[in-house]
Amino acid sequence: MNIFEQLESEVRGYCRNFPAVFDTAKGAWMTDVDGRRYLDFFAGAGVLNYGHNPDRIKSVLIDYLTRDGITHTLDMYSVAKQNFLERFHEVILAPRALDYKIQFPGPTGTNAVEAALKLARKVTGRERVVSFTNAFHGMTLGSLAVTGNGFKRAGAGVPLNHTMAVPFDGYLGNHVDTLDYLEAMLVDDGSGLDTPAAVILETVQAEGGVNVASDEWLRRLRDITKAHDILLIVDDIQVGCGRTGGFFSFESSGIVPDIVTLSKSLSGYGLPLALVMFRPELDQWAPGEHNGTFRGHCPAFVTATAALDFWKDAWLEKSVKAKGKLAVERLCKMVKNFGVKAEVRGRGLILGLAFEDTELAGTISAACFERGLIIETAGINDEVLKLLPSLTISEEELEKGLDIIEASLKATMKGDSRSAA
Amino acid sequence: MNIFEQLESEVRGYCRNFPAVFDTAKGAWMTDVDGRRYLDFFAGAGVLNYGHNPDRIKSVLIDYLTRDGITHTLDMYSVAKQNFLERFHEVILAPRALDYKIQFPGPTGTNAVEAALKLARKVTGRERVVSFTNAFHGMTLGSLAVTGNGFKRAGAGVPLNHTMAVPFDGYLGNHVDTLDYLEAMLVDDGSGLDTPAAVILETVQAEGGVNVASDEWLRRLRDITKAHDILLIVDDIQVGCGRTGGFFSFESSGIVPDIVTLSKSLSGYGLPLALVMFRPELDQWAPGEHNGTFRGHCPAFVTATAALDFWKDAWLEKSVKAKGKLAVERLCKMVKNFGVKAEVRGRGLILGLAFEDTELAGTISAACFERGLIIETAGINDEVLKLLPSLTISEEELEKGLDIIEASLKATMKGDSRSAA
Amino acid sequence: MNIFEQLESEVRGYCRNFPAVFDTAKGAWMTDVDGRRYLDFFAGAGVLNYGHNPDRIKSVLIDYLTRDGITHTLDMYSVAKQNFLERFHEVILAPRALDYKIQFPGPTGTNAVEAALKLARKVTGRERVVSFTNAFHGMTLGSLAVTGNGFKRAGAGVPLNHTMAVPFDGYLGNHVDTLDYLEAMLVDDGSGLDTPAAVILETVQAEGGVNVASDEWLRRLRDITKAHDILLIVDDIQVGCGRTGGFFSFESSGIVPDIVTLSKSLSGYGLPLALVMFRPELDQWAPGEHNGTFRGHCPAFVTATAALDFWKDAWLEKSVKAKGKLAVERLCKMVKNFGVKAEVRGRGLILGLAFEDTELAGTISAACFERGLIIETAGINDEVLKLLPSLTISEEELEKGLDIIEASLKATMKGDSRSAA
Amino acid sequence: MNIFEQLESEVRGYCRNFPAVFDTAKGAWMTDVDGRRYLDFFAGAGVLNYGHNPDRIKSVLIDYLTRDGITHTLDMYSVAKQNFLERFHEVILAPRALDYKIQFPGPTGTNAVEAALKLARKVTGRERVVSFTNAFHGMTLGSLAVTGNGFKRAGAGVPLNHTMAVPFDGYLGNHVDTLDYLEAMLVDDGSGLDTPAAVILETVQAEGGVNVASDEWLRRLRDITKAHDILLIVDDIQVGCGRTGGFFSFESSGIVPDIVTLSKSLSGYGLPLALVMFRPELDQWAPGEHNGTFRGHCPAFVTATAALDFWKDAWLEKSVKAKGKLAVERLCKMVKNFGVKAEVRGRGLILGLAFEDTELAGTISAACFERGLIIETAGINDEVLKLLPSLTISEEELEKGLDIIEASLKATMKGDSRSAA
Repeated sequence: MNIFEQLESEVRGYCRNFPAVFDTAKGAWMTDVDGRRYLDFFAGAGVLNYGHNPDRIKSVLIDYLTRDGITHTLDMYSVAKQNFLERFHEVILAPRALDYKIQFPGPTGTNAVEAALKLARKVTGRERVVSFTNAFHGMTLGSLAVTGNGFKRAGAGVPLNHTMAVPFDGYLGNHVDTLDYLEAMLVDDGSGLDTPAAVILETVQAEGGVNVASDEWLRRLRDITKAHDILLIVDDIQVGCGRTGGFFSFESSGIVPDIVTLSKSLSGYGLPLALVMFRPELDQWAPGEHNGTFRGHCPAFVTATAALDFWKDAWLEKSVKAKGKLAVERLCKMVKNFGVKAEVRGRGLILGLAFEDTELAGTISAACFERGLIIETAGINDEVLKLLPSLTISEEELEKGLDIIEASLKATMKGDSRSAA
Repeated sequence: MNIFEQLESEVRGYCRNFPAVFDTAKGAWMTDVDGRRYLDFFAGAGVLNYGHNPDRIKSVLIDYLTRDGITHTLDMYSVAKQNFLERFHEVILAPRALDYKIQFPGPTGTNAVEAALKLARKVTGRERVVSFTNAFHGMTLGSLAVTGNGFKRAGAGVPLNHTMAVPFDGYLGNHVDTLDYLEAMLVDDGSGLDTPAAVILETVQAEGGVNVASDEWLRRLRDITKAHDILLIVDDIQVGCGRTGGFFSFESSGIVPDIVTLSKSLSGYGLPLALVMFRPELDQWAPGEHNGTFRGHCPAFVTATAALDFWKDAWLEKSVKAKGKLAVERLCKMVKNFGVKAEVRGRGLILGLAFEDTELAGTISAACFERGLIIETAGINDEVLKLLPSLTISEEELEKGLDIIEASLKATMKGDSRSAA
Repeated sequence: MNIFEQLESEVRGYCRNFPAVFDTAKGAWMTDVDGRRYLDFFAGAGVLNYGHNPDRIKSVLIDYLTRDGITHTLDMYSVAKQNFLERFHEVILAPRALDYKIQFPGPTGTNAVEAALKLARKVTGRERVVSFTNAFHGMTLGSLAVTGNGFKRAGAGVPLNHTMAVPFDGYLGNHVDTLDYLEAMLVDDGSGLDTPAAVILETVQAEGGVNVASDEWLRRLRDITKAHDILLIVDDIQVGCGRTGGFFSFESSGIVPDIVTLSKSLSGYGLPLALVMFRPELDQWAPGEHNGTFRGHCPAFVTATAALDFWKDAWLEKSVKAKGKLAVERLCKMVKNFGVKAEVRGRGLILGLAFEDTELAGTISAACFERGLIIETAGINDEVLKLLPSLTISEEELEKGLDIIEASLKATMKGDSRSAA
Repeated sequence: MNIFEQLESEVRGYCRNFPAVFDTAKGAWMTDVDGRRYLDFFAGAGVLNYGHNPDRIKSVLIDYLTRDGITHTLDMYSVAKQNFLERFHEVILAPRALDYKIQFPGPTGTNAVEAALKLARKVTGRERVVSFTNAFHGMTLGSLAVTGNGFKRAGAGVPLNHTMAVPFDGYLGNHVDTLDYLEAMLVDDGSGLDTPAAVILETVQAEGGVNVASDEWLRRLRDITKAHDILLIVDDIQVGCGRTGGFFSFESSGIVPDIVTLSKSLSGYGLPLALVMFRPELDQWAPGEHNGTFRGHCPAFVTATAALDFWKDAWLEKSVKAKGKLAVERLCKMVKNFGVKAEVRGRGLILGLAFEDTELAGTISAACFERGLIIETAGINDEVLKLLPSLTISEEELEKGLDIIEASLKATMKGDSRSAA
């Protein structure tokens, strides 16, 4: 690993927890340069919902490259983009009766969030954006200002402004509806909260510790924002594309956001792609007012179009829910059996084991890695073991991963009791 | 084009000037869905320095995909990244005696600029960044604050702060050394310019109108920034990777920036990739302090490594300079022959024809498109016809493009004289 | 009133509610140019705690002017300032065992608040300041950013930043301890609330609607701020100088703020004067780092010194409490007798009658003015009738004012029932 | 001086240079507690244009207090304010054909500047304000952001934004018209300078080092701001009220600013008072949108009205010019005779001796104090000896002060040559 230590910045992170040099990957498996295989419960932080290098997408991509399909077009028209738009409308928007215009910003999540924030501010003429405690929306200045993590915020080197964080669902315990607070501040013109352009949220906070907003809470938030003429932005970058079951994470609540951001698993193959959707009345951009070099990255349009085949029928949604149920049951059983103080959280196939002892999640993640499972921690103190397998993982693979978690938990708890003895 | 008008946001821009639906591309040529071919003097805004889909890179990419090389790794180690780092060190850094650490931010230019600005502020503990008139550094909030274009700045919806624009080389005419002004403000603690963390610049402003900073001016800027302990960031996203001849645009001046950003042509194939380089002493990032999902996009590492073969010897640099010279001569001749009031600008293969009559550049660009040449305008009033062919274009293709420009200019001037008559 | 309408800006406010041209004043009484007398329950918004032109201070002031005592010294030393400092230490600080350094900023409240905020940020190296819903701290940019009123905030013309408003005591009803929220945000490094330099508060919010923070709540706030190393600033500009009974409004709670601001009644005669007090360890100002032309306004030092005689013994404090009790009882009786939906609030001699029907307070204020009583409204919707008589008002005068309120209330309620009939 | 050192903050400044405890004052003379007399060439930083405690104003003030004229009215109408407005219109505005509305903000200079900036931003809907190098406008956050002094700016504890400093007249030497730069930035929509709401300037920068803007430069600035629909704010707080000869400092140039601020010598007696004037079309304030407790400080209206008697005829203006001429001649002679490298600057009775050796001004100021003359330094390095006598000083007193300067200069130069020997 010499070249990395020699040349790559200290900013590198995941390589420290998963110190292998990866070479190939397929489905739920990654293989390192020494041929060691790892089961993947991380899915590239939500990029690989359909697994690594899925064959049906791969062949379409290689065909496109082979025939010299155009690679890079900025926002000129291309056959690749045309096909994607048609298919996305047909498979995703129309069946859900969603009437949205689509913008392709630069191909990363933070580009999409920045475009969404800019549009919301431009359309409303207001500066303030409300975000939630423990939100994660990205690392560029606009997105970072709506991100909660204090360590990452400090990296900005400038004060992060024009935003205000309010408590997410459940933040003050189950007996407090945190929206009481937001609504009181909005109703009161003396509250010191300047009427915001928008409220931005993840319906399930992934980095924040697998915090789930209930459907009721989401509906009330939608009502409050409507009543005060505030735009509601759902950042579905990590938990969209089927992660919670439906294609969009907000489907079960029945709400319709004003603006939605997508990226990560959108291309279906790990290629960078992002989009922002918004109600047609909000499409007040002038031509070129927001841009970005790689906003027309055709190989990604090609794979994204192929990936939409997963959404032709209800199979994937059902499968995600079934596998999610299975995993929750196993996790609950583990918690009970080992008598560990932990909460099982999540929806669909984003699940968390939130330990009271904040050291445990990291220890177990490391123990899992030793046993060939890649699994991340989340939460501000890395106190949550976060399960994020690909959606297409087989039940056997899922069980295998859970077995490894169980074994690691067992070993860790033993280690604890031993050291306590 | 129905689906685009129906679904895509009004923000789309280039498609309005070049209204074709592109399908395939090769070398200096693009082909639309109707089979019409276009010679490309735009190069995807600087992304395609080695032309469209160059065969030697394409085959490496297809091999990688075929063998299920891992696609997406965030900042975990991969063989693809390892190879890139080794090769980049060997071919680029070592021969130029550049001692830099490398950070892979999100794969777009603005991600790299944001990372550079954050690091500069973090390391110095200062907020202010000095940028130049007519600079272009990106559309996310941090980058937009150092971008000059008033129309794009207004899109932010919030005031853009912590920055100060000062005049670029030549901004106040040839008799004024604009650095006198910057230096006076820095020397004087009563100037109202808080000592900046960094100065960020493009050595040739591409979007800004093909404005070239002289080597002397760059050296004086380097001296001033050193004297005041201010970091110098060269944003080489558009004019690095050989655009001006050498791999880095600042090579001819002999200066060594503290921080350098690269993207666009870095991957050599139109795949999103970006990096930030900085002096090892500046590598004060904590692990994970800045991140970005697609910061480990392996297919782009693979193509970028292959693209470095262009830099094994001096052939490309010589070729760029020769073709640049040829183009400048032809452009100067046109200006003289047609008696049009215009200035020929540029370095290497980024060239501009800056018209006194600000309407002309757009008219000629449209006339070129009709004749099968894709060529953009630049400058705050779109008053500059910007030549940005791939570096690997043949002399014949270059001449052909220049013929089209000449024909378009001729037709336009005639039209003008006629309407004036 | 021609000259006012002709020449004075539309920004003028109180003259619209109390449209008389005042000429002289004494004690609790003001007299207009036509000789009409008004009983004053407004006290110049808290400036005239000792009444208009109190004789014992007046004679000292005239003596000083007569003997050509120096008027204006900036922050040079003067006998007038020396006497004030000695007396303030002897009568106020020492008996309360308060160990503070004193700064004289410009002589207005907002100058004091700005100085306090600057010092807190400078000493802690943090930017953020937490303020409370419905707070009022002043109209200059720093103070306005910690003020809640949306209408006044909008007057800034720039976004107000580096601050965050949290709910004041009782904001979410009596069953919610609003400090739960603040503490949760401070404990959690992922909350999005960057650790603040300071929390600033009024223990009784005057403009905000006579909202009273309980002693328990203040003590908990003091504990929380201490635990997180956050400075606590008490802005005692309106409710200090005896308004709530003790000289400082926080005395009854037993807390010791890190920084305290005083102005309004400090000079005791309506002359502009302000000060900031802070723990000696916080006195990290460099000489001249904050200044202000009128920071050494000697006539005000002279009157302020004389005014301290009111604090030689406990008479005033007892009198304020007794009169406050009397007024509360009368107000409660009125509410009951007239069956009006209203809450009686306040401490000492800052009292509010908060009406459920937000129109009522303004109507009654106008009716009082017709009957010769000057009384203001407060609260974001002007829904609170605010009683702010001088502390030295006689019981007879107080009763007389309450009689007028009662008569006005009666007339208004009748008017209401009539119009409802 | 024990009590000051014990209780007063380290922020105190002037007392360190002029370490006496002052007791009384009259005309151009101050007397300390030990009976020592000092000739005053400082005039309370421009507050005492009519000298200390001028008899004709003093008697009017004592009369007002004696008859219990109302002291404090906020912005209610008062006879005192009425008289001031009528007299100000009659003596100042009408003869100069100035059509302005008048706002009384809080009674300090920075309050006036904050109100002016807020109004300019509100009316134009723009955030940015352009200020000049070495400007001084006050210490509250809004004013500090347009102040140049880096040491004072750093005291803010937050980045100062929404402003941009550009070079004052003469900043880059006599051969450069600094407005070329500002105009180029305004004409060019790609300059990165967002169109500002306003330009704010002092026609003579007092704190900045007695820098004088020429009438031609002021006229060009007025033309540029008009052409770009930018408001021009003249901050005449220090050099208005006759300091440069005419009542307003901009009279000789013939320009009419959109907004003017006044304070310091406005009350004529050292009592805090400030006003903002603006074109009637700009009076878009809503009632109470900006306020401030001491905005109706009647004793100051009374003295300010009396002070306007100085402007009934041309005597004072002529006298200021004559005395200014006398002083300049003496200073030039000194410079020549002693062979010291220094520049004589100024207009009317604000004069500066700018030394090449930046230590000299401070040394001479101290030497003057020893000889009984109070004279301040100015400029970012305190390199300028600033002469700011009262306008009503007699020629004999002026000559006496100049004699002391000459003696101090002589002693200092000797000391230098001696130490150099």
